[in-house]
Amino acid sequence: MITQAPPRPETHDWMSIADQFQTIVGEKSVVRRREELLVYECDGLTSYRQRPALVVLPRTTEEVAKVVKICHDQNIPFVARGSGTGLSGGALPIENCILISTALMRQIIDIDYENQSVTVEPGVINNWVTQAVSGEGFYYAPDPSSQIICSIGGNVAENSGGVHCLKYGVTTNHVLALTIVTPTGDILKLGGEMPEMPGYDLTGVFVGSEGTLGIATEVTLRILKASESIQVLLADFTSVEAAGKTVADIIGAGIMPGGIEMMDNFSINAVEDVVKTNCYPRDATAILLIEVDGLEVEATASAVRIEAICKQNGARNVTIATDADDRLTLWKGRKAAFAAMGKISPDYYVQDGVIPRTQLQYVLGEIDRLGTEFGYPVANVFHAGDGNLHPLILYNNAVPGELEKVEELGGEILKLCVRVGGSISGEHGIGAEKRCYMPDMFTTADIETMLYVREAIDPKGIANPTKLFPTPKTCGEGAKGYAMRDIRGVDRF
Amino acid sequence: MITQAPPRPETHDWMSIADQFQTIVGEKSVVRRREELLVYECDGLTSYRQRPALVVLPRTTEEVAKVVKICHDQNIPFVARGSGTGLSGGALPIENCILISTALMRQIIDIDYENQSVTVEPGVINNWVTQAVSGEGFYYAPDPSSQIICSIGGNVAENSGGVHCLKYGVTTNHVLALTIVTPTGDILKLGGEMPEMPGYDLTGVFVGSEGTLGIATEVTLRILKASESIQVLLADFTSVEAAGKTVADIIGAGIMPGGIEMMDNFSINAVEDVVKTNCYPRDATAILLIEVDGLEVEATASAVRIEAICKQNGARNVTIATDADDRLTLWKGRKAAFAAMGKISPDYYVQDGVIPRTQLQYVLGEIDRLGTEFGYPVANVFHAGDGNLHPLILYNNAVPGELEKVEELGGEILKLCVRVGGSISGEHGIGAEKRCYMPDMFTTADIETMLYVREAIDPKGIANPTKLFPTPKTCGEGAKGYAMRDIRGVDRF
Repeated sequence: MITQAPPRPETHDWMSIADQFQTIVGEKSVVRRREELLVYECDGLTSYRQRPALVVLPRTTEEVAKVVKICHDQNIPFVARGSGTGLSGGALPIENCILISTALMRQIIDIDYENQSVTVEPGVINNWVTQAVSGEGFYYAPDPSSQIICSIGGNVAENSGGVHCLKYGVTTNHVLALTIVTPTGDILKLGGEMPEMPGYDLTGVFVGSEGTLGIATEVTLRILKASESIQVLLADFTSVEAAGKTVADIIGAGIMPGGIEMMDNFSINAVEDVVKTNCYPRDATAILLIEVDGLEVEATASAVRIEAICKQNGARNVTIATDADDRLTLWKGRKAAFAAMGKISPDYYVQDGVIPRTQLQYVLGEIDRLGTEFGYPVANVFHAGDGNLHPLILYNNAVPGELEKVEELGGEILKLCVRVGGSISGEHGIGAEKRCYMPDMFTTADIETMLYVREAIDPKGIANPTKLFPTPKTCGEGAKGYAMRDIRGVDRF
Repeated sequence: MITQAPPRPETHDWMSIADQFQTIVGEKSVVRRREELLVYECDGLTSYRQRPALVVLPRTTEEVAKVVKICHDQNIPFVARGSGTGLSGGALPIENCILISTALMRQIIDIDYENQSVTVEPGVINNWVTQAVSGEGFYYAPDPSSQIICSIGGNVAENSGGVHCLKYGVTTNHVLALTIVTPTGDILKLGGEMPEMPGYDLTGVFVGSEGTLGIATEVTLRILKASESIQVLLADFTSVEAAGKTVADIIGAGIMPGGIEMMDNFSINAVEDVVKTNCYPRDATAILLIEVDGLEVEATASAVRIEAICKQNGARNVTIATDADDRLTLWKGRKAAFAAMGKISPDYYVQDGVIPRTQLQYVLGEIDRLGTEFGYPVANVFHAGDGNLHPLILYNNAVPGELEKVEELGGEILKLCVRVGGSISGEHGIGAEKRCYMPDMFTTADIETMLYVREAIDPKGIANPTKLFPTPKTCGEGAKGYAMRDIRGVDRF
């Protein structure tokens, strides 16, 4: 049985609290007018909306700490927001909450080429990191498709991935150190510039904790030396099975491409209708885009071997692009795929399941079957190398009841991923959207243990409450029973 | 002020407890005779010794859970032990504790070549994993020098590294999933075969937690495809500065060798005296051993470029070994270095500090100065690529008072590492040995936060107490003041 905290007032004297914030951050950095607050009512998951009580825009770690301390002392829940591009509702406000925006924390604090690291404030845009160091031949590896607008703080919260995470890993593999403000308003330094640190790996726990353990106010990132050579292969197949087997064979041969992306026939045609790359064969059942990098001899040798593996598996054509313009042309359709769906359908709903590579053919078949059953077209554009699916369900949100049906279809796809040994999120996070599917993936004891850790860091449960974890209020009966020990702060909000 | 738990009996009716264990694991799997218990009184840090009250050798996850449940219910501290090769006293018993040995848990449970993973019991020896999969062309990357005897469970507890962790990372980068028994006797599954999982990364917290969060009873490890080609370079230098700059230049050029090892003149001569490789130039100030791997074209191209960088930095000679026998010859002296010290000196004490690569020359100079000041020869054999130093202090333990002086010298070296921005442990762990140096590296708030997490998982503080964290009892006044909230279980034992 969950022990709830004693009842607390649902609302506060917001004008008085706004005044308190103003003494910390200044008048212009507190948003209290109803129409201005509307800007913050959702993130990239636009089907969920909630207006925050107030928005605060601090500029320094100390200001964040003071703002959070007020929240802690007065039992006010807070939600952190970077650029608001997240797709799982991680930055979605909850009722009567403070939204803390990192939009004014956009300094690159330090660049250390010798030790290959960059320290930034959380509002810094992902792509700025690479721009800042590319002159010296370095780059920052994680590259979510929103990289020209998403913030590093948001990337840390959601443990964002990207096209190249097959070889280079996701955000957690590139965060060396963090300064965080805990939900009690304390300032901590986690990790360090050394690759491994003694003690508990709290950096690893914080990355991907979706705002439930506090706010990162400084992030030290690893930067990598840009590869001497990058080559991109486009291979087209007449069956998903052949494309899937090609992915397994490439990895099985000990070759590690930067990324392996797959697009199905539906996606290919949507992209060609809208973007007109004239590169993607409209009659292919599936195409693979494979990027290899390294020393020039290495990239060339890998490309030659991959081409042979594609052909062995029945690829009709393999195109290899070695110069920058040709590579861009091959990537153009993939990069524009989500936008293309937006042009051919009023709305789309994107899922983010992960499956073992070996289950690719079966799962794509089942997704197709489920789409037909529910009556919606589903396009598949995804990170095939690491089995991270992005089924795009096309629908019309203007038709009442459609969203609910589409979410149900999305849920069936996630359950399918879990059934074959996979996961309900590869890189978008759980947020508000998928919390009720957590019990499909984790046992009660697993979730309880995470909640104990949460309570250890956030004893009042005020940091982004109702996100990530299922609660009886948000998910009903299925979420009851976290019981081994009393957990304060669960399901208060 | 730390709130201590109420006083508890210092001892128990061990014969009655042994009987309870016997009903779980059988008569032969409980060690209670004084002379048999002596075997377990220390691990690889032989200068610290303590006899456990009882030793239990369970065979299954369920048996471990039942044994731990008894400890939990009766407030008995327990310490887990793998092969006992750890160098920081992580498996050192404490007074009136149960030692839980994983020596009977040595099954390889599952090998999954398609998804490139192996699931093992914790007593499985590191090297057995590679042996089990090498027929199919795979291997397990982390390779501590004790790999023919150390256990995977111990590797997980200490987050062990090895010669190749520069490129391939340490244990935490290769653990996909864990079954653990928590200190409350509950069985949890952490992580999964997918590379990234939603929720808090508790796998990452558990790896390297040095037995303070429970016992791993099943470990799923990532296996890698063996490289097509491996080449080893031996480069000799007349100055440490030149060798250090070579390391920085190789990494700075965007080349990522499997490992870069450095040996100083003292080590070279000790090894040549004992092992007689006749490969290592006795008059070199320092040598580098650099291993590159990958496709053959890639390894060759890397080796050629590294050779040029070595020569640019004044290397007198560069030898490249491409076939297996020649590679073994070049590695032989490095692998035998610790043993060689044991032959030229009655005892040696090895440290495990980490420093930024850029501080190499300064720190080696300071270590030399400190050695002279304390009056002990110090040999340096270490992972130069990731700045993980292993100073070997030669001394004679039979002389009263020598160990204390040597430990003091070791402590000065660790403080030096922290001062230049490094860390007090690269791969050996903190254990009983270095806990009192944690406050040199972490703030009170940092350590408190780790203790909150510890308390969340181990509310009674019975899992390997007194290890990893400083307590007033073990480290005196310097460890006082963990104060933000009450922490149960701190400093009870």
